Amino acid sequence: MPASGTNMPRINGNRLWADIVATARFGGTDNGGVTRLTLTEEDRHVRDWFIAECRSLGCTIEIDRIGNIFATYPGEDPSLQPIAVGSHLDTQPQGGRFDGILGVLAGVELIRTLKETATVLRHGLTVVNWTNEEGSRFSPAMMGSGVFAGASRLEAIEAVRDRDGTSVLSALEAIGYRGETLVGHLGFAAYVELHIEQGPLLEAAATEIGIVTGVQGVRWFDVSISGTEAHAGSTPMAQRDDALVAASEIVLAVRDIARRHPPGVGTVGFASVGPNSRNVVPGSVQLQIDMRHPSEAGLDQMQAALEQAIEASHSNIALRHIWSKQPVVFDPAIVDAVRANAAALGLSATEVVSGAGHDAAHIAGICPTAMIFVPSKDGLSHNEAEYSSPEECSRGADVLLQTVLQIDLK
Amino acid sequence: MPASGTNMPRINGNRLWADIVATARFGGTDNGGVTRLTLTEEDRHVRDWFIAECRSLGCTIEIDRIGNIFATYPGEDPSLQPIAVGSHLDTQPQGGRFDGILGVLAGVELIRTLKETATVLRHGLTVVNWTNEEGSRFSPAMMGSGVFAGASRLEAIEAVRDRDGTSVLSALEAIGYRGETLVGHLGFAAYVELHIEQGPLLEAAATEIGIVTGVQGVRWFDVSISGTEAHAGSTPMAQRDDALVAASEIVLAVRDIARRHPPGVGTVGFASVGPNSRNVVPGSVQLQIDMRHPSEAGLDQMQAALEQAIEASHSNIALRHIWSKQPVVFDPAIVDAVRANAAALGLSATEVVSGAGHDAAHIAGICPTAMIFVPSKDGLSHNEAEYSSPEECSRGADVLLQTVLQIDLK
Repeated sequence: MPASGTNMPRINGNRLWADIVATARFGGTDNGGVTRLTLTEEDRHVRDWFIAECRSLGCTIEIDRIGNIFATYPGEDPSLQPIAVGSHLDTQPQGGRFDGILGVLAGVELIRTLKETATVLRHGLTVVNWTNEEGSRFSPAMMGSGVFAGASRLEAIEAVRDRDGTSVLSALEAIGYRGETLVGHLGFAAYVELHIEQGPLLEAAATEIGIVTGVQGVRWFDVSISGTEAHAGSTPMAQRDDALVAASEIVLAVRDIARRHPPGVGTVGFASVGPNSRNVVPGSVQLQIDMRHPSEAGLDQMQAALEQAIEASHSNIALRHIWSKQPVVFDPAIVDAVRANAAALGLSATEVVSGAGHDAAHIAGICPTAMIFVPSKDGLSHNEAEYSSPEECSRGADVLLQTVLQIDLK
Repeated sequence: MPASGTNMPRINGNRLWADIVATARFGGTDNGGVTRLTLTEEDRHVRDWFIAECRSLGCTIEIDRIGNIFATYPGEDPSLQPIAVGSHLDTQPQGGRFDGILGVLAGVELIRTLKETATVLRHGLTVVNWTNEEGSRFSPAMMGSGVFAGASRLEAIEAVRDRDGTSVLSALEAIGYRGETLVGHLGFAAYVELHIEQGPLLEAAATEIGIVTGVQGVRWFDVSISGTEAHAGSTPMAQRDDALVAASEIVLAVRDIARRHPPGVGTVGFASVGPNSRNVVPGSVQLQIDMRHPSEAGLDQMQAALEQAIEASHSNIALRHIWSKQPVVFDPAIVDAVRANAAALGLSATEVVSGAGHDAAHIAGICPTAMIFVPSKDGLSHNEAEYSSPEECSRGADVLLQTVLQIDLK
């Protein structure tokens, strides 16, 4: 059971906020955001800052071959695997100051707090910066944690190139972050990731903490609709085979299917019309669909409903399932610890399933894992206007600290 | 009343077909189509051919300042304004061999037939080739007939430029077709245009002749939908403001409105989605709408229904009415003549309203005008596969000849 409210150690919210401000200068944009793509000079600067800060606190540093950084504050019992916290320091182009960054900087602040209060854990505490969570320079996203957890092969990932033809391997070498440690060589007793919600639920419910019970599964579909291009004036309505009309019915079907399978979501984010001319009945439309649900069964039902909607259509429609990611369920004991500690700290909290992917989704495959969310103003992220207040960040870090302390007790 | 069937003079279908084949070599494509954009070298070649052919038949040639060509076969009474027939010799890029071309070549064949049978009309017979009906190089379409009928000012049109920056005036001069005649200086007793249907109705009904009673009016609208760009994973369905969902409802509303206002048609031919990424809920969509109806009252009702559908939407949608063209009703006496002569020739015929615009729609404003349609295979046009059979072309030219003879009697 967690300690009672007033005696619980707290992190220093001002220090944490100062770090958020300080690191935002690496790739900082004029509009208050950050452009810090993975393995660029800006990324090198923030990595250097992170290592210097952790070294000064007495951490040992390990860097693996894919550039993941592990800063470990020693525990009492070196035979125990460390407890890990962390996230990622890379951003999207014109991204924000919080996405990923909060989780790493909160880890640094946890170590400061332990040191300041002379708290010695049984386990070591490792703060991790995962390489290329965002995936905007090199695909796939969650690259470092994916290789670490065995979801991708190192050699294949090293060969991935960006738009300029630079490989991951050369980019790692160029910024001096191709480490020596074999990827996945380290083991953790547990992994807990603090992150901004990147969605509107917590703010809408005026809730301070999100108890993340898992990550939604994802299925991606490509839809190709073949109609008949025709003159918009001389083709009567009854004789049309309008690909955009058929596409519109699918867009609405995807929306309806998601509504019928809560808490699933379904999005048609991409549409391309051919020939795309005002006075020509569209002959072809391409759509890209993203469907998510916390359970595999839910995804199966949503996919079946989509297939049915397409079959029921009178149009010539081809559906291709091009990619999927299974749902992740986080470790119930750590999820319980997050819930109990938020309550002990007097914070309002609600269970959420992450709609976005996270490094924690990979790490959940190799050790007990969970996540903690704090609110995102207007649900915004991947955006320079991304914002969580100093108090919101501080509360999240406090819950993270208490959760680590509780895991350490076992 | 028309002459009875067997005694009626007939055009020579083989000669007409040979001309279609012969002129298709000017800009002919590998796939059996024609790319002959207005005022290009290809257009110059077919214009030269047309003038040479008509001169050899004894026609006088006039070319006006916008490049419209008038080849007049003299009649008995020079005090009467000539009867005009014709259409256009320019094509769309990768267009067909019939659209416009049939109407001009049928005019040439009419003159051959008159000459061969030593038939002298009271009126002169003028075959017209209108400049730039297609509008794909210079906008607007129906340019030459528009200036002729006073719908556009010559000076404004001369200044219009193509994508390479060439003006209409320089293009006219470059191919030597800026004529001397003042545009609109010539007057006609009547104008009759033979054209392919460019739609599927005649073929579907196995009907040989379309008696064209008018041209649909057109209204163009631009629609701008502002939603909220959001993460496709972390934004619950209930909290979305998805611009593509709203756009899809409008696409279906346009379809439904047109169905409720027969014989009106409604098309969303253009859609552009922002940011158009699979895993981002669309934040904006632009649509372009084309609505047509044979009556102004029908267009008013369709527009009101569209405004109502947009008002009823929960989304932030701006509708702009950007262009319109009033419906055209052709001269009832000439329409009756077409009907009577098709019947006298033993041809099946049906009344149609043209969905596409034609030079005849402009000319209807200045003299008694009508059109005759022949079937288009699969309703195709603006397409290399555009096709009407030799028999179909020949029947249309026969009806044109009889209609001219009947107008001449009055």
